[in-house]
Amino acid sequence: MTDSPAVDAACAALTALRETVPLVSCLTNTVVKPFTANVLLAVGATPAMVDIPGEAGDFAAVASAVLINLGTPTAEQREAMAEAVAGARAAGTPWVLDPVAVGALKVRTALAHELLAERPAIIRGNASEIMALGGDGAGGRGVDATDRADAALPAARSLATRTGAVVAVSGPVDLITDGTVTVRVGGGDVLLTKVTGGGCALGGVMGAFCATAPDALSAAVAASTVYAVAAELAAADSAGPGTFAVQLLDALAKLDADTLAARAQVS
Amino acid sequence: MTDSPAVDAACAALTALRETVPLVSCLTNTVVKPFTANVLLAVGATPAMVDIPGEAGDFAAVASAVLINLGTPTAEQREAMAEAVAGARAAGTPWVLDPVAVGALKVRTALAHELLAERPAIIRGNASEIMALGGDGAGGRGVDATDRADAALPAARSLATRTGAVVAVSGPVDLITDGTVTVRVGGGDVLLTKVTGGGCALGGVMGAFCATAPDALSAAVAASTVYAVAAELAAADSAGPGTFAVQLLDALAKLDADTLAARAQVS
Amino acid sequence: MTDSPAVDAACAALTALRETVPLVSCLTNTVVKPFTANVLLAVGATPAMVDIPGEAGDFAAVASAVLINLGTPTAEQREAMAEAVAGARAAGTPWVLDPVAVGALKVRTALAHELLAERPAIIRGNASEIMALGGDGAGGRGVDATDRADAALPAARSLATRTGAVVAVSGPVDLITDGTVTVRVGGGDVLLTKVTGGGCALGGVMGAFCATAPDALSAAVAASTVYAVAAELAAADSAGPGTFAVQLLDALAKLDADTLAARAQVS
Repeated sequence: MTDSPAVDAACAALTALRETVPLVSCLTNTVVKPFTANVLLAVGATPAMVDIPGEAGDFAAVASAVLINLGTPTAEQREAMAEAVAGARAAGTPWVLDPVAVGALKVRTALAHELLAERPAIIRGNASEIMALGGDGAGGRGVDATDRADAALPAARSLATRTGAVVAVSGPVDLITDGTVTVRVGGGDVLLTKVTGGGCALGGVMGAFCATAPDALSAAVAASTVYAVAAELAAADSAGPGTFAVQLLDALAKLDADTLAARAQVS
Repeated sequence: MTDSPAVDAACAALTALRETVPLVSCLTNTVVKPFTANVLLAVGATPAMVDIPGEAGDFAAVASAVLINLGTPTAEQREAMAEAVAGARAAGTPWVLDPVAVGALKVRTALAHELLAERPAIIRGNASEIMALGGDGAGGRGVDATDRADAALPAARSLATRTGAVVAVSGPVDLITDGTVTVRVGGGDVLLTKVTGGGCALGGVMGAFCATAPDALSAAVAASTVYAVAAELAAADSAGPGTFAVQLLDALAKLDADTLAARAQVS
Repeated sequence: MTDSPAVDAACAALTALRETVPLVSCLTNTVVKPFTANVLLAVGATPAMVDIPGEAGDFAAVASAVLINLGTPTAEQREAMAEAVAGARAAGTPWVLDPVAVGALKVRTALAHELLAERPAIIRGNASEIMALGGDGAGGRGVDATDRADAALPAARSLATRTGAVVAVSGPVDLITDGTVTVRVGGGDVLLTKVTGGGCALGGVMGAFCATAPDALSAAVAASTVYAVAAELAAADSAGPGTFAVQLLDALAKLDADTLAARAQVS
């Protein structure tokens, strides 16, 4: 036990994750699929990437959680995403929205706004993306965060209140809010921004924790905390972005509740 | 020479693979494409991933072998798979079927049953998948093996007899059968299940060995043996799934016939 | 300062790249997307892979450079490529063509010939591909270079003169020509041919350098030189293709102008 209920909850959720091995159905972009799958395997979940029409809905209904990441949304994947979200809602499966590069690009921006009505449990993005969705920004230049997380807090709160989702803003310090309570998760490492999928894979981990945490807020906090601590440990053994990506997978696999409790930076 | 003709055949096939550098055309899922290509390069083959209609058939005809993996079968890729299989059959090119998550999901299950009529040389899957195809199981929950390999042996034998294919069931001990003879390949490491594509890439390697082994049974045995020995060597130098994936590529590249002969567990 | 103006220009372009962080829009094949993105991040650029119709053109117009790689050109990606090239031309954004496996395969060969009319800044390929495009060869067997770079020099010169593009031929020594001047870049390591995307990622790096070098010839030379020196450094710390791919990312991230100046082999 620590003196932080949020950290204790993260530790309990991690232990439960290793015991229950949640199945996370990921409809995600083609750049980050391998890394996202490997991150989920490392943390103790089972990834599956069923993203074709005629299957995505059925699979979402049996999965523990669903990730919808808008990084490379082909027409066929968009159709599968609609099925997956409908299947998830019908089955009560929580789902995470990662609105990659929303604001700057037409197709995904329209899709993101449609999906907001479908009650995601968590919306995860960088400051630019959250500001674009929350109505306060013009969007980023693709995957790059051009705004700091704190600047996105009003947009994040407003987006959370409007949609009922927990909103997580990635940055040097992650901000996670349900519109009322805001939690800050520190730690991590700047090398995460030098590995493709460093942020996208966190969306998958948030999905996995939705299956074992008591609510979406604690799921997002647990995922961010686990990820940040693993990134810190990985960075200590890395000589650059190549070794860091490898070490991050090892660190996620090794991380236990005691280490998490000792190193978590949650406020 | 060892006291096992199967191991001697695997050693000869590995040596021949390094000399002939077979070209393996992979129509595989978007999660495992990079790892599959890197595994094939490491073992000494040349991968190519020509999976669009209008090209897949022509390319299958000039390739040494074809891999059809049903992990993320978009409509366009399904059309290309039909072309590739037709091109392979017309040219006498051996092809390997990996029916990922068959049984549980409609589109790929229908496709897998169609493809069974097209005389794959090898069918490779986990126990759940082979049981689903062989008619004895309800299918798995995606990529996860929920049944042990031995439980799938009757389904594997029946599937082999019905289709004329060699059937390989992955597990802690791999089972490989042509319906009459059954070979067991031990070794490997549980870390293989913690790397996305750990199983899928083996399908590609089986394709490569189809080009250098005398028949499909010895190709599947050689590929499984090479993979298992490399995985053991890699695990000895690994601290988790990240380093394991990297070491597996190095181990596959370094593996020679003498090491293979000394460490193979075939019965 | 070195005694080679080409090396000095490469050093200056590298320094400028780290300062300006060019955004490279990559429409590339699904096998090499993760590695290409990680290479671009490591060298100091920002990759984005916006390859769907309705977005690719707008994004190309705001990007610093565009990469068009024909490795797995689905119908939807081909449409996006046309948009991206049109957007790039309208905005004056330089773009790089990587005609993977052209010559041997119908769909991409037709597409490559269409794209040649759209004034790529750089065309990058192996000898077989350049000979196929330049009219002097029958094409390769997929991604494999079956001809040496020198054999492709007449085709490369002719292609450069005809299209106005700089043509870069990868090989043990890279040849880069604008039709008149030909530059040779040595170094590198054969392990680059054992990592999937080893060549394709270089196309992305050439795009990044288009944003910071004074012209396409010096951009291609700078990119090839940076890549070759990083590959040499990486190979010295590698035990096989797995560790090499990881070390290459670290080496690209670490490489500075002084090391580049000391180790570049440009003539």
